[in-house]
Amino acid sequence: MGVHDAMYILGGKWKIHLIAALLFGPKRYSDLLRDINGISGKVLSRELKEMEINQLVKRSVSNTQSNAVFYELTEYGESTKSIIAVLAEWGEAQREVIVHKNNDK
Amino acid sequence: MGVHDAMYILGGKWKIHLIAALLFGPKRYSDLLRDINGISGKVLSRELKEMEINQLVKRSVSNTQSNAVFYELTEYGESTKSIIAVLAEWGEAQREVIVHKNNDK
Repeated sequence: MGVHDAMYILGGKWKIHLIAALLFGPKRYSDLLRDINGISGKVLSRELKEMEINQLVKRSVSNTQSNAVFYELTEYGESTKSIIAVLAEWGEAQREVIVHKNNDK
Repeated sequence: MGVHDAMYILGGKWKIHLIAALLFGPKRYSDLLRDINGISGKVLSRELKEMEINQLVKRSVSNTQSNAVFYELTEYGESTKSIIAVLAEWGEAQREVIVHKNNDK
């Protein structure tokens, strides 16, 4: 079943958050550590390593900015855009549901 | 950001799998334990409890089959159908990518 295959690759607490952040463009490790609320350095390193192995993300060294290391989505990683878009849409809609519920109290 | 709101509700290892199973209709606890590969009874109980609290799932007692307890998606739970569909589509497409890669070796 497709859902299990997708969750095998995208499952866990952080991968969807990381992909959502990288959809805005290449990011440094320190950017990701700052942007992803609640993730530790150790977990971030492990998740990025897994995503490299799964070919969702590639690592490159910038020849301009003092050899800064950047992470960016591969074409394969970019293919998850449709999932991130639907999650974002659903999440936004839920926020309105929750706000309405709180206003009704 | 909508993705974070969605992952706050749907995140973790099992919720997407449970929703995908329940999209086929109401299920008993024992059905879910059998259908969701690798989940333990303790974790299944905890996840279902969380999903009830988050109003994704509702629990009902059958008045026909010896008071069997059924779990089914609420309307809110059903609203995640678009996410499950996109995940399933992406997962199916990945399976073909992986099969092609293995055939090329």
